[in-house]
Amino acid sequence: MALTRRALLASAGLGGMAAAGGGGFALGREGESDAGSGPDAREQIVAFHGRHQAGIATPAQDRLHFAALDVEEGVRASDLRELLRTWSRAVERMTAGQPVGDANGEALAPPQDTGEALGLTPAHLTVTFGVGPSLFDARFGLADHRPAPLRTLPALPGDELDPEHSGGDLCIQACADDPQVAFHAVRNLARIGRGAVTVRWSQLGFGRTASTSRTQATPRNLMGFKDGTANLKAEDPDALARHVWVAGDRPGEPAWLRDGTYLVARRIRMLIEVWDRTSLGDQEQTIGRHKASGAPLGERDEFATLKVQRLPADSHVRLAAPSTNGGDALLRRGYSFTDGLDDRLGQLDAGLFFLSFQRDPAAFVRIQRRLGSADKLNEYIKHVGSGVWVIPPGARRGGWVGETLLALSRR
Amino acid sequence: MALTRRALLASAGLGGMAAAGGGGFALGREGESDAGSGPDAREQIVAFHGRHQAGIATPAQDRLHFAALDVEEGVRASDLRELLRTWSRAVERMTAGQPVGDANGEALAPPQDTGEALGLTPAHLTVTFGVGPSLFDARFGLADHRPAPLRTLPALPGDELDPEHSGGDLCIQACADDPQVAFHAVRNLARIGRGAVTVRWSQLGFGRTASTSRTQATPRNLMGFKDGTANLKAEDPDALARHVWVAGDRPGEPAWLRDGTYLVARRIRMLIEVWDRTSLGDQEQTIGRHKASGAPLGERDEFATLKVQRLPADSHVRLAAPSTNGGDALLRRGYSFTDGLDDRLGQLDAGLFFLSFQRDPAAFVRIQRRLGSADKLNEYIKHVGSGVWVIPPGARRGGWVGETLLALSRR
Repeated sequence: MALTRRALLASAGLGGMAAAGGGGFALGREGESDAGSGPDAREQIVAFHGRHQAGIATPAQDRLHFAALDVEEGVRASDLRELLRTWSRAVERMTAGQPVGDANGEALAPPQDTGEALGLTPAHLTVTFGVGPSLFDARFGLADHRPAPLRTLPALPGDELDPEHSGGDLCIQACADDPQVAFHAVRNLARIGRGAVTVRWSQLGFGRTASTSRTQATPRNLMGFKDGTANLKAEDPDALARHVWVAGDRPGEPAWLRDGTYLVARRIRMLIEVWDRTSLGDQEQTIGRHKASGAPLGERDEFATLKVQRLPADSHVRLAAPSTNGGDALLRRGYSFTDGLDDRLGQLDAGLFFLSFQRDPAAFVRIQRRLGSADKLNEYIKHVGSGVWVIPPGARRGGWVGETLLALSRR
Repeated sequence: MALTRRALLASAGLGGMAAAGGGGFALGREGESDAGSGPDAREQIVAFHGRHQAGIATPAQDRLHFAALDVEEGVRASDLRELLRTWSRAVERMTAGQPVGDANGEALAPPQDTGEALGLTPAHLTVTFGVGPSLFDARFGLADHRPAPLRTLPALPGDELDPEHSGGDLCIQACADDPQVAFHAVRNLARIGRGAVTVRWSQLGFGRTASTSRTQATPRNLMGFKDGTANLKAEDPDALARHVWVAGDRPGEPAWLRDGTYLVARRIRMLIEVWDRTSLGDQEQTIGRHKASGAPLGERDEFATLKVQRLPADSHVRLAAPSTNGGDALLRRGYSFTDGLDDRLGQLDAGLFFLSFQRDPAAFVRIQRRLGSADKLNEYIKHVGSGVWVIPPGARRGGWVGETLLALSRR
């Protein structure tokens, strides 16, 4: 099925919106107060446009709705361009606290917005789009433009991956302080994409596990430990430039990806019941930090400099530290998850949905090879899902995310 | 296996706590700031003790973690008493923002609290316990004390129930403004109960769908409609006395249940994709309200008096209204849920986790019989999980939830 621009927009319910230049929102017309317009609400808007996509170095919100999507058969590069353009326009609206389209205008048509976020604040919504290795196959004329570092991650020690919870042609990371706002974003983007893309798998997260700004307190993961103390911070642009943003000045860094990065996602199941039966001393030796304070073992302050030689050789913090990884560092932005009970075992299906942004996914692979083979933490976790996506640069005003890449396709 | 008091407490990790009279919390001793102690934190405490259990007429929080549990084989009435007593003590602590036990005291023992809520505020946590019909079988000497209205719900029109997502000897409804606080509560209660109870099924919810107080704005459900406008409110004690609280002055209302109530839970899957393709007009005719304002069809104000005769005969609001149900009214306290994708269909597994409190579950059954046979909404929903529990009265100071019932067992 080849979608025309009009067909895609019509199925997206955005035909009228495009025709009317984005105007004609009945809710606004009726003078109903729009949650997106008050002064408090404006403070909750994270800018959509910019050099980098939002949702990476911007402060981590408390809730996540992540979706991996596959492109349907018969969709062409031109359809994909139209989809990404429409998605960007929708995200620009949603991050400003507005519905993606007319939610209350025409009685005879399905509302263009599903409505569950009406009256809610913008809640610092960010939506970050990624492109998986599979999109660079023969379908869209992009094969010659795949950045060399973008490959499905190799098998790593300790992997027990579920293919149905791994991979995807595209990904959407929606983060917000309100779960209903994040859910609304993914739902409406999936709806706009109907006929062009289907959701392959999705993941909800709560309680960010890493802080990306010095203004944020370090949260605790479901093991009860502070997680993310030594994370890269937005206030350190030099470190971000070195470890996160593609500058286009190294081999394998194509010009279209300048100011972009790579996202690695790992669904890490924690064996909660086993962990909960472990003594405090063993827990602290496993992590390499004190549980209450978050300080490195033997120290009193959470932010004390890591003296890795003093930590147990198989402790998680020591093995993951940049100083023991040839300087490799990741910007972590993960979330806790709990998805009820494991059907087979009746145990809690909960853990860490690990998300990291890095200039080259090889940095993650190198660190995980070390961790996967030696980390004492492996007794308590297993990696059950995996994905890697290249994250295009942010959209300029009037532009859209993915523009620099899709412009390269001749189709 | 017959558990002794000591064995149960030891497996709960609370032995030391009981012996030390609840003192000896190392986190406090080290002088680390306790999130539960500041003035803001104190405002976030919902009292555990009281005539009624909290989490019913207290203002609905934004997040839910619900668990249905079964009692393991060999557990005796005395074990159950000890479990409920220990649970009450743990909940009293958690609702005050404190760990259930020593989280950081003994290196050689597993911490008594799992730790992920350390540093978080009380977040208005409430924990509400319920007892299912199955607990009144031959096991615990309670068969003669089953209130007559407590029976597994009869088959209802439109039911497509999954037995693995239905029923349970006991239930725990944990609500809080922070999902990590609600998760922590259920996890630690399940841990305390290890060896005595196992979680049968659980459900996470977000975005309360009903307001229980006039001070709360009416939220929207995942259909994008305001839900709960006509709900019973805490500010109307006469209505609560009539429709919610057992007074002990009607047939089938045993003395032990005075100030208690009944909880009905229904996992209602919404056929989101079908709904999203439905025109605004059809959506509004189905619900019987305007989507934007929440006003009854033909009215302008959300709280305009329902004139049911003017609404479509098969509209949800008309069929559910007390005036068309012989005065039956429920206190609804449900949550939206989304649990990823349906494995078979690849569609969103999302909807409403309906929770209602009522003086007699028969009121729910009568309303649902009407709705299930005539409601236009049935094209867009199906009931896939179900449970009913009797909710004992609240605990007095020094007492515990379930005391009035368990005291009746001679075993």
